[in-house]
Amino acid sequence: MEKILVFGAGRSSNSLIKYLLDKAESLDWQVTVADYALQLAEDKVKDSQRGQAVAVDINSDQERQDLIGQHDLIVSMLPARFHPIVAEDCLKLEKHLFTASYVSADMKALDAKAKEKNLLFLNECGLDPGIDHMSAMKIIDHIREDKGLELTAFESFTGGLLAPDDKDDNPWQYGFTWNPRNVVLAGQGTVKFIQEGRYKYIPYQKLFRRIEMIHIPGHGYFEGYANRDSLMYLDVYKLRGIKTLYRGTLRRPGFCKAWDIFVQLGATDDTYQMEGVEGMTHRQFINSFLSFNPHDSVELKLAHYLGLDLDGPEMHKLQWLGLFEEEEVGLLKGTPAQILEHILKKKWTIGADKKDQIVMWHLFNYVENGVTKQIRSAMVATGENARETAMSKTVGLPLAIAIRLFLEGKVEARGVQIPIIPELYNPILEELDQQGFQFIEEEVTLEEKD
Amino acid sequence: MEKILVFGAGRSSNSLIKYLLDKAESLDWQVTVADYALQLAEDKVKDSQRGQAVAVDINSDQERQDLIGQHDLIVSMLPARFHPIVAEDCLKLEKHLFTASYVSADMKALDAKAKEKNLLFLNECGLDPGIDHMSAMKIIDHIREDKGLELTAFESFTGGLLAPDDKDDNPWQYGFTWNPRNVVLAGQGTVKFIQEGRYKYIPYQKLFRRIEMIHIPGHGYFEGYANRDSLMYLDVYKLRGIKTLYRGTLRRPGFCKAWDIFVQLGATDDTYQMEGVEGMTHRQFINSFLSFNPHDSVELKLAHYLGLDLDGPEMHKLQWLGLFEEEEVGLLKGTPAQILEHILKKKWTIGADKKDQIVMWHLFNYVENGVTKQIRSAMVATGENARETAMSKTVGLPLAIAIRLFLEGKVEARGVQIPIIPELYNPILEELDQQGFQFIEEEVTLEEKD
Repeated sequence: MEKILVFGAGRSSNSLIKYLLDKAESLDWQVTVADYALQLAEDKVKDSQRGQAVAVDINSDQERQDLIGQHDLIVSMLPARFHPIVAEDCLKLEKHLFTASYVSADMKALDAKAKEKNLLFLNECGLDPGIDHMSAMKIIDHIREDKGLELTAFESFTGGLLAPDDKDDNPWQYGFTWNPRNVVLAGQGTVKFIQEGRYKYIPYQKLFRRIEMIHIPGHGYFEGYANRDSLMYLDVYKLRGIKTLYRGTLRRPGFCKAWDIFVQLGATDDTYQMEGVEGMTHRQFINSFLSFNPHDSVELKLAHYLGLDLDGPEMHKLQWLGLFEEEEVGLLKGTPAQILEHILKKKWTIGADKKDQIVMWHLFNYVENGVTKQIRSAMVATGENARETAMSKTVGLPLAIAIRLFLEGKVEARGVQIPIIPELYNPILEELDQQGFQFIEEEVTLEEKD
Repeated sequence: MEKILVFGAGRSSNSLIKYLLDKAESLDWQVTVADYALQLAEDKVKDSQRGQAVAVDINSDQERQDLIGQHDLIVSMLPARFHPIVAEDCLKLEKHLFTASYVSADMKALDAKAKEKNLLFLNECGLDPGIDHMSAMKIIDHIREDKGLELTAFESFTGGLLAPDDKDDNPWQYGFTWNPRNVVLAGQGTVKFIQEGRYKYIPYQKLFRRIEMIHIPGHGYFEGYANRDSLMYLDVYKLRGIKTLYRGTLRRPGFCKAWDIFVQLGATDDTYQMEGVEGMTHRQFINSFLSFNPHDSVELKLAHYLGLDLDGPEMHKLQWLGLFEEEEVGLLKGTPAQILEHILKKKWTIGADKKDQIVMWHLFNYVENGVTKQIRSAMVATGENARETAMSKTVGLPLAIAIRLFLEGKVEARGVQIPIIPELYNPILEELDQQGFQFIEEEVTLEEKD
């Protein structure tokens, strides 16, 4: 019997734990779910014969190491800052480790030691990072290995969105389906990418105006804005020499120009505490970024400042959020970003009946017999409700499938890995496809443009 | 005989050392100038009977403390990061300390100990900070103490500029009269101020578009953009409750809108190293911030991106700087800010015949018998040439005069101080006035505006 330990029973662990418990009887596994909040762990395990819930203080070396010592394979769904200490324990106690988080420098440094002890430390095996790696590498390997051709462009976009809903009057077509703070701070820092062989840089103040329109057949149009540093994928995917490399985030049309209002005002700044937050209203919050003028309304000042139509779609989006209301924010202190997040939560917290939607889209160019061809690959996944979200499934299932494959002896890789190797991405993508997470591919020949 | 030790013989020490040596005979002083570069110290001392030049390694505790121990009063014109170690020595060896730099947290922490030992640690006694404090506090004290009235608004602007020159074709009317790196990075971070009782914030991406036009009789118009944190002057000048508080920087008209191009492009970013700097041309540098488009010129892309006229004054300013030339930058690596600084130096390094100009302007509002009155105070100082600059004089003379006053027993303050007390600002401003650095004041009654 294999003993699996899952640290962290938050929302993102839902689908992972469910998969493991569903397979536990037939594959002879025992699954322990450990969380600081025992109730949360018990909710996940329910009355499963193969599962047990335990409370753990992750900061207690003894509690943590005792638990790890009693298991064969450790899964960390904890916030990423805890991974290094769990990884050190796994190295010491010789246990395999699985996470959905980015490989940190600390984690990377353990590669040789993990290999030495024949351990697998698999990371970045969720949605983004995770499914993005797998679905991209499958096609990149196909072009390079099967066809023996060179990739000339790779673009990749992912969005965590709301599913289309005719009955919803939310003009943003957006809500908080994931960490609200990350949404508010998204894009800060400088964006770097390569276009037609040239390095390109976009500062935060222009990011939401330099968007690409992307069409996904059957799902309509999306806006894509660039992610922070696409250049690191030159090495991760072995793309040195590629002419175009661009990764981005998807939103519904009209989102970026309206979000840019907050960026231009400075309302997403997280570096200083505002004065007089207690008693501040939404309207005062916006006004604090506008010049003083006793004769003009906040609406008129804002529209004039940023060159917006007073009755245009951007102003409407802000009105819908209640930003011009004399309603109290409800915080005692905060940075602009914290206050904005608090205001946005009032309207963007999604109801129990809402469905989220994950959209992933890749583009690959290669040259065959002098003709440039383009493969486009898209996955759209819709959640069932605010609990059974597409986000939770697409984050948890790839990791769960990887665990099954590993325990069945089908994974030979050891050391610190991410799922860009065929023995992982082929079976995981196949099972995701069976579970309804399909990539639809099309291939076109690019015409010479004027 | 009093023995004065000056650390640092750079350009900003010129007028300070000259003043001290000129007075040394009559006031019975001995002046030691210490610098890492002995030649620099010797150039300053020349053949003065009362002066001596010595070489010092400021990082050597023994060399530094030996020198300090042999003197009565220490002046630090070193980069601000060295002040804390010099201050600790002064405390230990019981010496007075004079600097022109901002009071750091480290310096502030020494206040009680310096008072205990009856030592004066005078800081912020140059131009800005320095003359700005003195000239402002004199009028603030006049309104509050002499008239017993309340200050309702205080605005203060300073600029280090080029003197007007008809023969100069430089459309910026600007050059590097001080630290170029500080010019490139100016304004980063968030600006905070108070206007009509409301806290206001301006992010960097809007700073150079939210300018005030300021008219100084006899000197024409200037643009003022806000300085980082005006709120700290609420406590420094005891202005809690004031309705408007705003500090800023002056430039010639048209400067800010053109400089904003660099801000919008991201060309002043100092947080990352650019790729492919070796061999990069000015034109390629600008192009790396613009989208890829093989059909349009860099000029057209830039003008369209930022909404500029192709033949307008902003594009002309960039052309004059050579930014569209295929000339190599001449660096092997660098951040955008470092590369921009290097390009700007090619045109903005001022020739030996150029004169700099310091412009300082204050505005004070107060209410007398129900009528709002406004005092405006302006100082304009022009340098003699690129060596005898107005900047060097206005930084060095206030400090030198403060030293004279102190050694003549006319300063009673002890501990960590800045020159906002009458025993300092009155005699210093008076002597500056005699030396040609005059504040011209005018008082007007403000009409009710429409």
